[in-house]
Amino acid sequence: MSEGGLSQRLARFVAVARSEDLPDPVRAHATRLLLNGVGTALGGASDAAPLRLARALAPFAGPAEATVIGRAGRTDAAGAAFLNAVAMNVLDFDDNHHGTVIHPTAPIAPPLLAMAELRPISGDQLLAAFALGVECACRIGLAISPGHYARGWHITATCGIFGAALAAGRLLRLDATRLVWALGGAAAQASGLVETLGYMAKSTGVGAAARDGLLSALMAEAGVEGPPDPLGGPRGFLSVTCDAPTPERALEGLGERWEMLNVFVKPYPCGIVLNPLVDACLSARAEPGFDAGRIARIAVRGHPLLKARTDRPRPTSGREAQVSAQHAVAVTLLHGAPGAADFSDAAIAAPATAGLRAKVATVEEDPACPVEAARLTLSFSDGRELSLAETRATGTPGRPIGDDALIAKFDALARYGCPGLNPGPLKAALWDVAAQPRAGAVLDLARPHAA
Amino acid sequence: MSEGGLSQRLARFVAVARSEDLPDPVRAHATRLLLNGVGTALGGASDAAPLRLARALAPFAGPAEATVIGRAGRTDAAGAAFLNAVAMNVLDFDDNHHGTVIHPTAPIAPPLLAMAELRPISGDQLLAAFALGVECACRIGLAISPGHYARGWHITATCGIFGAALAAGRLLRLDATRLVWALGGAAAQASGLVETLGYMAKSTGVGAAARDGLLSALMAEAGVEGPPDPLGGPRGFLSVTCDAPTPERALEGLGERWEMLNVFVKPYPCGIVLNPLVDACLSARAEPGFDAGRIARIAVRGHPLLKARTDRPRPTSGREAQVSAQHAVAVTLLHGAPGAADFSDAAIAAPATAGLRAKVATVEEDPACPVEAARLTLSFSDGRELSLAETRATGTPGRPIGDDALIAKFDALARYGCPGLNPGPLKAALWDVAAQPRAGAVLDLARPHAA
Repeated sequence: MSEGGLSQRLARFVAVARSEDLPDPVRAHATRLLLNGVGTALGGASDAAPLRLARALAPFAGPAEATVIGRAGRTDAAGAAFLNAVAMNVLDFDDNHHGTVIHPTAPIAPPLLAMAELRPISGDQLLAAFALGVECACRIGLAISPGHYARGWHITATCGIFGAALAAGRLLRLDATRLVWALGGAAAQASGLVETLGYMAKSTGVGAAARDGLLSALMAEAGVEGPPDPLGGPRGFLSVTCDAPTPERALEGLGERWEMLNVFVKPYPCGIVLNPLVDACLSARAEPGFDAGRIARIAVRGHPLLKARTDRPRPTSGREAQVSAQHAVAVTLLHGAPGAADFSDAAIAAPATAGLRAKVATVEEDPACPVEAARLTLSFSDGRELSLAETRATGTPGRPIGDDALIAKFDALARYGCPGLNPGPLKAALWDVAAQPRAGAVLDLARPHAA
Repeated sequence: MSEGGLSQRLARFVAVARSEDLPDPVRAHATRLLLNGVGTALGGASDAAPLRLARALAPFAGPAEATVIGRAGRTDAAGAAFLNAVAMNVLDFDDNHHGTVIHPTAPIAPPLLAMAELRPISGDQLLAAFALGVECACRIGLAISPGHYARGWHITATCGIFGAALAAGRLLRLDATRLVWALGGAAAQASGLVETLGYMAKSTGVGAAARDGLLSALMAEAGVEGPPDPLGGPRGFLSVTCDAPTPERALEGLGERWEMLNVFVKPYPCGIVLNPLVDACLSARAEPGFDAGRIARIAVRGHPLLKARTDRPRPTSGREAQVSAQHAVAVTLLHGAPGAADFSDAAIAAPATAGLRAKVATVEEDPACPVEAARLTLSFSDGRELSLAETRATGTPGRPIGDDALIAKFDALARYGCPGLNPGPLKAALWDVAAQPRAGAVLDLARPHAA
């Protein structure tokens, strides 16, 4: 085995890292991401995609040992990993890594949560494995960005499976050789296409990454071997899925600079490019005497991606509304900080929202405008005009959402997707996950009582 | 949905084809491939790869409704599809499509066999679905060949999943729209890397293709939708995994010219490029007075790939021996037509074989030599020389193996991998599969009695 190969280097990093050596900010951030991930899974629990996928998988379900977050029953660990990954990501409200656009928690946390119900694993072990898995997935993503996503790979799934395999392998206490085997199994199954975005098939890819990452680790434990460098080898994942990979970016400052700190919790359940616009709408609402009913005309201006991706005046589904500037502006001006319900199929039909969407007269592109900035200009029926510039949107580097907002988001998602669950005990247990002697016990709090 | 998109065209073809309209040669060939596939699964049933994979999957196994070929117990249908695909392909003795190098039966037949144990499906329905799935997988492969494999994709897995999804979807009687959804689920999971060849991780990719093709069809049945053209769309499977795809090759003469007739049953359990050499060795053995003990020197000459891939004088494992010209020549000269046992770890250590391998003095390349031809020159200790040219190897277009050889292969594989099974009734049922009222009953004959 090549001692210096990328796979071997990452595997050694994951195998030998000591939980107590992870810097405090890394542990704290992992806790936030985990809490946020479970919250988004509660919010997505009743979505049609996880429900239909669950129906298809049910006839093959094994022992009911693992929690499907927000559902009363349990299923086997592989199925739970699949379904929880789907629920975490389906609202597009989870998290995002600045630099690769990976949503890392969805494919990586669910396999670990499922494993924690099968084997005796402490909260501290779970948290360390999760942090290391996210770190490696983001770094593998950096080594193939931006070419990989541009070519058409859904990087959340394609890189998520490697993070899941390494993190699950760490919980199994695999040595570096077997962690490389786990990466080999993952490389044989890594997939996910940008073509599927906007469809339930996207969820299939994300769910499969979680399930197959978990299974790759368990297969490695059972002795299923693989090539010496499935990531960096001549026909390995990097070269095959990217025209100009830069493996050195995956290793630069490994263990010193933490890439996982650049994963941002999403403040709003819509395309990230819309964040500055939503912020500007919230600022407008905070102006004295603001009245959305008196708006006559709305103009929007921002980074070219804003127009290219989100100029959709009449979205026909909640999923399309998530990438509609007109819709995001209308619901925020009407109701304040948007939540999952504001991008449902029902929300797009509301007459007041449709009326305000129609008042968005222009979505202009400004090549000089950074992607985290935007300008909103409101013209009122009395002739007044209000023009607001947002320079650094919430949920971008340097302006993460605070813990209060994170907790409010968790509560709102629980109410939205899983009204039968009391979220308090679950939230408290997750916030204190590092101190849990048995991490699996936390999942008991994520099932509404079937009564 | 794009009426003319590649996905839609293939889906319609599979949805509307009538079983009775499939040409007789197509039905007969599908029968042969199925028999051969089940035979290779029997042969591979005791290999370490399926055994270790089965151990890893066992804790998640659902209802024991589907046969693992050659094993006494059953498992859930998704797991059986996975494990049977692995067993069919692990010896590299299954079949191969001329033009793409896809081994189509391994990923496509197992999901159908598993489905046949879950639902009432006739042998005729099974056979038609199988023929159509193989046809589509090979055609999708043609649209991305040779660039896809050359880039590093293990085409058996990457294209096999689409054939499996379409064929399983046909057994579910999905309409064309839902068959396209099944292709979408498959596109989100299609994977497999050339980097894994020679390792058990290759089997993981092939098994996953079978399992996930099956699940994609069942997910489509449950309403999990996908993009309108997951194969031919702008960020679809073809463009993302091939630099210069030719989608028209997938559709050329669809339903008139049958690409599945170009799938060849492998006559020997070693790299295809070695076939003409094995044939030449068999011709040498047929010479009057042939005595392997008197060989002093062996020279081999063939297509440049022969030297590039198989000049391995001292293989260290059975798997490496499968691509060693020296080993293939030695075992064939010593024992006749080679079977699975001749490429086991034990076989490479035999002193007589090692001695004869060492007498292979040269493996020369001849750029003018076609890949299905080779020349073998034997020099004997008494000074005689025997030089044999093989121009068209067994198992290549125009020289398929006959039914007698096919049946002998089946029997030998059953003895090798599953000595506890009486292969007669299974063979008879498979040979007559089109007449079986319930295809699932055939699988009952593929389990040795646990007693």
